[in-house]
Amino acid sequence: MTVTFESALLAALAEGLPPDAVLTDEAELALHSHDSAPFSEAGQPTVVVRPGSVEQVQHVLRTARAQGVPVVPQGARTGLTGAANAVEGCVVLSMVRMNRILEIDTANRLVRCEPGVITADLAAAVAGEGLCYPPDPASWETCTIGGNIATGAGGLCCVKYGVTADYVLGLTVVLADGEVLRVGRDTVKGVAGYDLTRLFVGSEGTLGVVVEATLALRPPRPPELALLARFASTADAGAAVGAIIREGHVPSALELLDPTTTEAVATLGHPLLATGAADAQGSVATLIVASDAPDAAARVREMAALCEGAKALSVAVADDQERTRQVLRARRMVMPALASRAQEMPGEVTAFIEDVAVPRDRLAALVGRIEEIAEEYGLYIATVGHAGDGNLHPTVVFDRSDPSAVRRAKEAYDAIMAAGLELGGTITGEHGVGTLKRDWLVRELSPRNLRLQREIKRLLDPQGLLNPGKVLA
Amino acid sequence: MTVTFESALLAALAEGLPPDAVLTDEAELALHSHDSAPFSEAGQPTVVVRPGSVEQVQHVLRTARAQGVPVVPQGARTGLTGAANAVEGCVVLSMVRMNRILEIDTANRLVRCEPGVITADLAAAVAGEGLCYPPDPASWETCTIGGNIATGAGGLCCVKYGVTADYVLGLTVVLADGEVLRVGRDTVKGVAGYDLTRLFVGSEGTLGVVVEATLALRPPRPPELALLARFASTADAGAAVGAIIREGHVPSALELLDPTTTEAVATLGHPLLATGAADAQGSVATLIVASDAPDAAARVREMAALCEGAKALSVAVADDQERTRQVLRARRMVMPALASRAQEMPGEVTAFIEDVAVPRDRLAALVGRIEEIAEEYGLYIATVGHAGDGNLHPTVVFDRSDPSAVRRAKEAYDAIMAAGLELGGTITGEHGVGTLKRDWLVRELSPRNLRLQREIKRLLDPQGLLNPGKVLA
Repeated sequence: MTVTFESALLAALAEGLPPDAVLTDEAELALHSHDSAPFSEAGQPTVVVRPGSVEQVQHVLRTARAQGVPVVPQGARTGLTGAANAVEGCVVLSMVRMNRILEIDTANRLVRCEPGVITADLAAAVAGEGLCYPPDPASWETCTIGGNIATGAGGLCCVKYGVTADYVLGLTVVLADGEVLRVGRDTVKGVAGYDLTRLFVGSEGTLGVVVEATLALRPPRPPELALLARFASTADAGAAVGAIIREGHVPSALELLDPTTTEAVATLGHPLLATGAADAQGSVATLIVASDAPDAAARVREMAALCEGAKALSVAVADDQERTRQVLRARRMVMPALASRAQEMPGEVTAFIEDVAVPRDRLAALVGRIEEIAEEYGLYIATVGHAGDGNLHPTVVFDRSDPSAVRRAKEAYDAIMAAGLELGGTITGEHGVGTLKRDWLVRELSPRNLRLQREIKRLLDPQGLLNPGKVLA
Repeated sequence: MTVTFESALLAALAEGLPPDAVLTDEAELALHSHDSAPFSEAGQPTVVVRPGSVEQVQHVLRTARAQGVPVVPQGARTGLTGAANAVEGCVVLSMVRMNRILEIDTANRLVRCEPGVITADLAAAVAGEGLCYPPDPASWETCTIGGNIATGAGGLCCVKYGVTADYVLGLTVVLADGEVLRVGRDTVKGVAGYDLTRLFVGSEGTLGVVVEATLALRPPRPPELALLARFASTADAGAAVGAIIREGHVPSALELLDPTTTEAVATLGHPLLATGAADAQGSVATLIVASDAPDAAARVREMAALCEGAKALSVAVADDQERTRQVLRARRMVMPALASRAQEMPGEVTAFIEDVAVPRDRLAALVGRIEEIAEEYGLYIATVGHAGDGNLHPTVVFDRSDPSAVRRAKEAYDAIMAAGLELGGTITGEHGVGTLKRDWLVRELSPRNLRLQREIKRLLDPQGLLNPGKVLA
């Protein structure tokens, strides 16, 4: 009998996993070979496993270690940097079956859950108990809590409520050697020993596999009111953002749509952005601002006045829930509007959603640089961003069957990263590094910092089998 | 000429430090040999250095490394666990001279400062620019930002505004080898690489020496309104805390005074706690609750009703700033009241302020256990706590010249730690580990967790010269 490395691996995995937890079908392997990033390299996995318990995860890691096979942990593959991409010959460790909510503790405002829970399902479950889990990444209806923790995911409301990391009280992690490690605690406060919890958050499955999380919850969010303001330029919109921050407001959303994005949403047909004759000033940027403070009505009026002071062309204040929904719909229409744009273009058109963050007051400068980059490379780039956090998502819509367009899209991406760093920013506000930004990480961090990162990786994964090549080259 | 190790060390230090930065006077050495912890071991330093620049800190660390001498970083020595205590023959590295506020950036709501800035000075400086640095440890008028970062300090308002760690965006650290490491960033959001910032926060000077910090700021806090409620038992007060949390309130302070503390404050003379005949029910616990929400008046009234629903003996609602100050003064009177109690006792009486945290709903159970422990060991223990965080400070007032009292105080401390862990809590909510709680850390954390902590320590300080014996034995 011929025993290949592959068959030995499968046989060993089967010893500790139920048959339906081991997938080797070609279509499944292809499906699980990559996340939602463009450009990023991906290999072919040998096998996809979907464990249903901590013990099964331990078995997978021990088996992979014994055989020297890399393991790529995976959630819903909604990531945008290739962090969940397979590496050649790896075991893809899909955590989607471990999706139980173990406990909602209303007295202590916390929830314990497995990593495969869909973020929206968790939010709905805790809402059912009168509590709120605020982090709201764009993919929240399909992405998993484990993926959110692995990437350190953000979202729209983090300008007021913080990012995923701010809600992680404790984690249970299976380490590369198959041992179970518990970090953090169930208390709101705690400083016993080094903070290992935050070390695992955002580590993209390179230091261990999260098998359980304890997350802090909040009281429900009060209803929001919102405004939509149109400006002749991004610079004017940026000035309004500056005024809102300076005047001490803490909006629950503060979103900027650059002129290209505004035009796309207007074309798809949002009533407040209709391009009537009265204001056909050409280039128009949009600001969407919300407040869920107890005095939201007054807050929104004050922020509307600040927009007017920053030369807004028009300001629509939503004074009830229905109008607020209408205002906020303009933000949710961004991706459909860009998809619609893509459909009008010839070829195999794709939208490459980028992620870069700068100190808040350099937001308009970065949007200006991105506009220049779009012009320079002859590309359609629509920028939308969490203006309150200085976090922008420039989206390049291009024909991936056109080698010139692909090359220009890559060069534009490099130029955008460079601009972000030049303006004192970071190469990723909330999407992470994966394989896509590995080379840029080296440009953001100092050699000493990188060395320490590599040493920590080696400490936790001496054989380098846990999601190798992600975050660090 | 005889060259001792000590004279060689002093000569080498003098090469890179101004003369007045090197202290060898016996009184100075004694003064700098310990922080504010009782019980904790402390050695005699060889020298105290007070560098004025990053380069001087680098020189100190390189010199100490070359000579194999331990270095103990030190702030204002207000810590309560011995984390800043000298070890025998060490260099005490006092950071108090590096106390400049480098930049207050109002547009980006952040401040850059050196570690020796007094917390209250920083708070005042940013308040002068219309911003707020919320963390408010009890010693905030004398402690330093560097010490707050080293211990991961909390405070009264963290029930709403979070702890020191939540405000640290970036750090500049001098490592054990004298190299400068920059971690974190100037942006609100960022996930580029592993979170090394949080690794240094709370590491008590064992991993590196913080020489600069970038801290997030907030808009100013609105004025608070407050209430003071008296209960027949701690259990009733705990039920009121539970109701306040369950009903979705986010108070800006939620402080519990157990019957012993309440009695001490009443004796010192607070009008709302005067022990009139009308309610001489004996044991009375007190809850102080504040709100700085825009609808604070309504919030405080609602929380007052919840206190009444939890069988409060009396509830005083402060509906203006003057009365609010009066309510909050009851909390600030706790330490003076216990000091006054101490003065009445015979011997060399000291107050040992403990720190333990449990999940919020086990607060009353822990206070009950502490009452039993006080009885069992024949000790005066007054417990005050940040009830909203489940974080209690039992304070043992005892005669440190009486060996029996010292022994009982130590045993009671052990019993309190054990009770905290039994109730699912942690041995320290905000004071840290230092030398005092090293042995208890081993009981809280799993062997694998401790091993990882030790490995991280070794990675950053292979010679074990940075604050040796603190946090980890």
